Amino acid sequence: MTNSPAPLVLYYCPGTCAFVPMLALELAGAQYTPHPIDLRKGEHKTPQYLAVPPAGQVPALSVGEEHLIQLVAIVDYLAGQFPHAEILPADPIARARAMATLVWFNSTVHATFGRIFHPEGCAPDEAAQAAVRSAATAQYARLLDEIEARYQAAQQAGAPWLSGARAGVLDAYALCCVRWGELVGLAAADRPHLLAQLRKLADEPAFARAIAREGLPLP
Amino acid sequence: MTNSPAPLVLYYCPGTCAFVPMLALELAGAQYTPHPIDLRKGEHKTPQYLAVPPAGQVPALSVGEEHLIQLVAIVDYLAGQFPHAEILPADPIARARAMATLVWFNSTVHATFGRIFHPEGCAPDEAAQAAVRSAATAQYARLLDEIEARYQAAQQAGAPWLSGARAGVLDAYALCCVRWGELVGLAAADRPHLLAQLRKLADEPAFARAIAREGLPLP
Repeated sequence: MTNSPAPLVLYYCPGTCAFVPMLALELAGAQYTPHPIDLRKGEHKTPQYLAVPPAGQVPALSVGEEHLIQLVAIVDYLAGQFPHAEILPADPIARARAMATLVWFNSTVHATFGRIFHPEGCAPDEAAQAAVRSAATAQYARLLDEIEARYQAAQQAGAPWLSGARAGVLDAYALCCVRWGELVGLAAADRPHLLAQLRKLADEPAFARAIAREGLPLP
Repeated sequence: MTNSPAPLVLYYCPGTCAFVPMLALELAGAQYTPHPIDLRKGEHKTPQYLAVPPAGQVPALSVGEEHLIQLVAIVDYLAGQFPHAEILPADPIARARAMATLVWFNSTVHATFGRIFHPEGCAPDEAAQAAVRSAATAQYARLLDEIEARYQAAQQAGAPWLSGARAGVLDAYALCCVRWGELVGLAAADRPHLLAQLRKLADEPAFARAIAREGLPLP
């Protein structure tokens, strides 16, 4: 166990991308307090949570009096604080590749899902929202295909996981994305190779702890 | 001058966010070959550039035989390779804040501009594209306001630049975003405080070199 000098609190909502920094904390063996925020109940808009700066964002990581936001920045911070855990690869080129994939999940895959789940963020009228949701759903299906293809490419290169020899933050993001697909009619079973690989995550101790913490079944 | 062991080639298009890693290279005093790719002429779709894996992405940074993509990952790589340049802050919390802002530019501000410039990425029909473009333009105006507010907050906290005491990658991204606003009818002059600050970038040697390399005037 490595203890960070300042107490760590992870603000998360089960089923969201907050699973990624939670997995990073579990990989690190870090002592942290998981603080659930139920987005569906609007708990991120309560006066108590809005008082946590920067207001209302989930995930957020408190480090003592500091409040960190943005998944990529939180994962990068934890990678720096817990180098033994290799949350990101130590080799600079391998790290750059992993960062590129993490950013791709965040700014492409996650953003595309956002247009399915919240098309009102893209257009005010219902007809345009329906068009945005429909186009994003087709794009998201292709992105799930690409995630599966990335697993197959990694395995052909000798690594079972997107994060390499051991399942890590990239695999955690892949799991989130596949779960989100199920919410919008893109069945995980349609990509059996990907689904079979993600089900093996239950055997990885850090994942088993994070999955139990979230309380959600694997797809 | 610091020389990286492997030759660096930056594939960039003037006026795009490739200005951000270019500025990082200039801050580092790195030896690199700038390789312009004219997106308007479709040079990123030529057989020569598609042969550079991963095909067709701009910006990209070649490090010898390795090809790195994703702006955030490239900046993070350069920050690690040239620690003396403090492309990202050395202090872990300050670094996490800078990374969060870099990711915000990339996944929120840049993505919103993308919906103005390429609404066809969000919806197939012209009516929905017009709705998407219109909504994104209003959102982008608010994001430019937020960039200006972030400068004012930084200055109230004693730092002239988003990147701190010295202008850096966050200021480079801000410059890109203000230029993009001009392309879609959001005049830089409408935010005189922000515009005045960005015009001071010409006095920063690394910016002066990158601006000269791009060959574009400041707003």
